[in-house]
Amino acid sequence: MSGWLRVVGLGPGDAHWITPEVQAILSEASDLVGYESYLARLTPGPSQSLHATPNRVELDRAQAALELTAGGARVAVVSGGDPGIFAMASAIMEALEHGPPAWRNLDVGIAPGISAMQAAAARLGAPLGHDFCAISLSDNLKPWSIIERRLRAAVAGDFVIALYNPASRARPAQIGLALELLRATAGGERYVALARGIGRAEEHVQVTSLADVDPAAIDMRTLVLIGSSQTRLFPRGQTGAWLYTPRRYEAAP
Amino acid sequence: MSGWLRVVGLGPGDAHWITPEVQAILSEASDLVGYESYLARLTPGPSQSLHATPNRVELDRAQAALELTAGGARVAVVSGGDPGIFAMASAIMEALEHGPPAWRNLDVGIAPGISAMQAAAARLGAPLGHDFCAISLSDNLKPWSIIERRLRAAVAGDFVIALYNPASRARPAQIGLALELLRATAGGERYVALARGIGRAEEHVQVTSLADVDPAAIDMRTLVLIGSSQTRLFPRGQTGAWLYTPRRYEAAP
Repeated sequence: MSGWLRVVGLGPGDAHWITPEVQAILSEASDLVGYESYLARLTPGPSQSLHATPNRVELDRAQAALELTAGGARVAVVSGGDPGIFAMASAIMEALEHGPPAWRNLDVGIAPGISAMQAAAARLGAPLGHDFCAISLSDNLKPWSIIERRLRAAVAGDFVIALYNPASRARPAQIGLALELLRATAGGERYVALARGIGRAEEHVQVTSLADVDPAAIDMRTLVLIGSSQTRLFPRGQTGAWLYTPRRYEAAP
Repeated sequence: MSGWLRVVGLGPGDAHWITPEVQAILSEASDLVGYESYLARLTPGPSQSLHATPNRVELDRAQAALELTAGGARVAVVSGGDPGIFAMASAIMEALEHGPPAWRNLDVGIAPGISAMQAAAARLGAPLGHDFCAISLSDNLKPWSIIERRLRAAVAGDFVIALYNPASRARPAQIGLALELLRATAGGERYVALARGIGRAEEHVQVTSLADVDPAAIDMRTLVLIGSSQTRLFPRGQTGAWLYTPRRYEAAP
């Protein structure tokens, strides 16, 4: 009996973003482990066991998945987006490093997926077409001071910025603080794109500016993209607009 | 006769990373446009036209693709990786913005793909598990000074750093200059991962440090990842190691 564990990413919503690699792992797994809303997107086979857990216990979920694997199960740990970007792969690594030494001999692997910023960028045009950074606004596991430091550095480097986990019911005020910091350092003219529920029925995309953005329009399902000094907006046919960051850097801002 | 254009990403190499969305577009297209080495990865149907171009004429390729679309063709513009990240989507946007106004009414869309840093991260563990940035070292279209500014900002923000286009035959020295700058500002102890040809037969991954990395080991097919102060390395079974960035930020470096 030889178990394995794969951390897989379902992408941001639509099944047409699930890679064949992930699809194959999902069909070969004996056990599917993940946050309940991700597992709800799957159609398990009759012999597959589902292990649904609430969202905020990543490390418990990782340990349980590794225990199943050590017992011989074929385990798919299911993330949304890319498991390697603000998702379960890091929790599995943490559990492996600090768990029983025998776990390090288990057959463990990661299968990448489309992350939220990529799907949002595809809908908008090409905002990530040049140098960018990705920052999680969650301060559950890091101090707010390091988030501020990174936002300042992102502006100093004139990066396009993707903000993950911009808000939750437990911390509704932080996105407002972050946008205020960005406005104070980069100015109000930077483009801000709000991409909500990309790949789902409720998909909605909006482009505004740091001066005009309303933090109340941003929730935990929103991916926030802030342009660099170079990011451009131009009309798309009769309605809408394309947002993109040119490959060329014209002049220092 | 109603044409369309889709910018698609094949991922970094292995076909099992091509999404079903991209696969469907490739099979429905009448014309496949792209850099010759990307088109060589496809098996075109008997009625599909291939338009292979050398790599360094992205804007010409974008304009030619839009002209085909305006003439009624169903055009797939083929990138490696994710077309939205240092690839063709931005060139298409540039051609659209500055081209004939009628082009803006064309049916244009982007289909995301797995980018090189994601595939590299999956092989290594979870180095992108926390805040990170992506920087192209190519100075064909931007001054070297903005690259230096971004490298400094990335260190100031203690980001994990993914370096795209780290070297080419035309500019072999820049990766050495970049690593020197990073070593001088972040210190020699940061982990450096070199991921070459991920998803291909020649796939090779190596983890070293800023103090020890050899720039001569890095070529245009290498994705370079530099850890933050928090990134960790631990043994993987009998051989090898896992590299990951924890979700928790322990202390300011």
